[in-house]
Amino acid sequence: MRIVIALGGNALLRKGDRGTSAEQLLAAKSAISSLEPILRQNQVVLTHGNGPQVGNLLIQQQATDKVAPMPLDVLDAMTQGQIGYFLSTAVSMTGLHSATLITRVVVGKEDKAFANPTKPIGPFFDSPPKNLNPQPGTAYKMDAGRGYRLFVASPEPLKIREHDAISALLEKGFVVIGVGGGGIPITKGGEGLEAVIDKDSATSLLASNIKADLLVFVTSIDAAYLDFGKKSQKALGMTKAQDARKHLAENHFAEGSMKPKVEAALRFLDNGGGKAIICSISDIRDALDGKKGTTFVP
Amino acid sequence: MRIVIALGGNALLRKGDRGTSAEQLLAAKSAISSLEPILRQNQVVLTHGNGPQVGNLLIQQQATDKVAPMPLDVLDAMTQGQIGYFLSTAVSMTGLHSATLITRVVVGKEDKAFANPTKPIGPFFDSPPKNLNPQPGTAYKMDAGRGYRLFVASPEPLKIREHDAISALLEKGFVVIGVGGGGIPITKGGEGLEAVIDKDSATSLLASNIKADLLVFVTSIDAAYLDFGKKSQKALGMTKAQDARKHLAENHFAEGSMKPKVEAALRFLDNGGGKAIICSISDIRDALDGKKGTTFVP
Repeated sequence: MRIVIALGGNALLRKGDRGTSAEQLLAAKSAISSLEPILRQNQVVLTHGNGPQVGNLLIQQQATDKVAPMPLDVLDAMTQGQIGYFLSTAVSMTGLHSATLITRVVVGKEDKAFANPTKPIGPFFDSPPKNLNPQPGTAYKMDAGRGYRLFVASPEPLKIREHDAISALLEKGFVVIGVGGGGIPITKGGEGLEAVIDKDSATSLLASNIKADLLVFVTSIDAAYLDFGKKSQKALGMTKAQDARKHLAENHFAEGSMKPKVEAALRFLDNGGGKAIICSISDIRDALDGKKGTTFVP
Repeated sequence: MRIVIALGGNALLRKGDRGTSAEQLLAAKSAISSLEPILRQNQVVLTHGNGPQVGNLLIQQQATDKVAPMPLDVLDAMTQGQIGYFLSTAVSMTGLHSATLITRVVVGKEDKAFANPTKPIGPFFDSPPKNLNPQPGTAYKMDAGRGYRLFVASPEPLKIREHDAISALLEKGFVVIGVGGGGIPITKGGEGLEAVIDKDSATSLLASNIKADLLVFVTSIDAAYLDFGKKSQKALGMTKAQDARKHLAENHFAEGSMKPKVEAALRFLDNGGGKAIICSISDIRDALDGKKGTTFVP
């Protein structure tokens, strides 16, 4: 089976971690250990976020004017290298072959997201920093009363530029690590953009582009819930797309957390995908057998 | 034909460049423009250095203690992402398909290089910095009277871990960018090491590992010379390995510059390679026809 698995931030960095190299490698090894039986029996692409890593890199970029700071697209490429290396190391240590591909994702230069940057990244500032010139499509704004942060656009992914390279490697038996941090946003012409692509959305598109049989979102929560956090909360098991769409409309899923995953799962099904799962990493084998987590079907 | 081309530092950053994103992309576009006819007609892997980029990243790592600094193997992975992204962008803009692979290179943990770190990296310090603990196999030493610098080991590359992934992508028609900065040094078991692998040496090994027909070192000098810099200087054209070995023994080639390239070229021939070329990027097409540069044959 061809499977795309999106690793959530908590699979790559544990609570309280500072993000040292040793901590990240340990988290990667733990994640890969849970996935190993699946990696052995299937063609698997692993995607991952890069929030904490790109935030740290931004702080370092801004800490000195001795060297030229890199723009966000380049920082994305650098964190893809960083995190991909940790995951590749963990995969290789199981004896499997892995390959980390720097992955670009085409977005529309005219995407309306650029008119209203909504995705906060990097450190908090007491006031909008004057020495850092926001690029077009970015702005310093107050973030939840905690301070000023750089907000960037989150445009819709249109095409995974490296999807054919990913397929080529899967066919040869490699565990592929790609689309890190949602991918590096580029225009159709190849020009890099200062933006952030939603990781779940880009992962769903990858699964469609490479005609995956299954899309899995690994999260810190064991399933998608109705009435999450209330007494009446109820985990969803096998769920039809039409029912999931109703639950979405009734606002059962949290913004920026479960909602984008459910939406990305449904988009995969809309694009012809057969099955999408949301589960915790420890449940993933049972979830593939339909015993745990939430499974969405057309 | 299957060709491995090592791009020298000056092909990626021009004299006087600070290393901004715009400068690096411009240099990459210029390099790829010279290579385009060759990329269109052959299976090509591009390798590259990372000296200035990893030096800048080290300065940023040390500029703040707000976030955890990454060790050298991780910084290598990050610069592979950075530079690979610039080169990929330049290749894609010609309409060709490109793929950047994070590449690890196996070295011997017991390599005697670790007893005597010889490769200076990163910024100069007035005195050995007390807050930066050198790892085993690294040391702060005076560099050419200009200040203290971190010296790391430069072990022999034994195997390009990703060589089969690189071959798989070449067979599918991708221009592959890999082995950046000489590759990320790892032990046979996959553990990262604080070291730097000579880029020319790693490129030669890659060419052998993937059974390339031709290995090309692109440099700022148009050929290998006898008596370089003297009145009697003479460019070498077609040169047999046995003659090159004689010239090497007579110290015709500069340490850290032409010598490692000639040695790496000869090692490729020793390992069964058919032809290795040293030339400038503007001469590369003529050099492939034997009209320019230095061509080494068995």
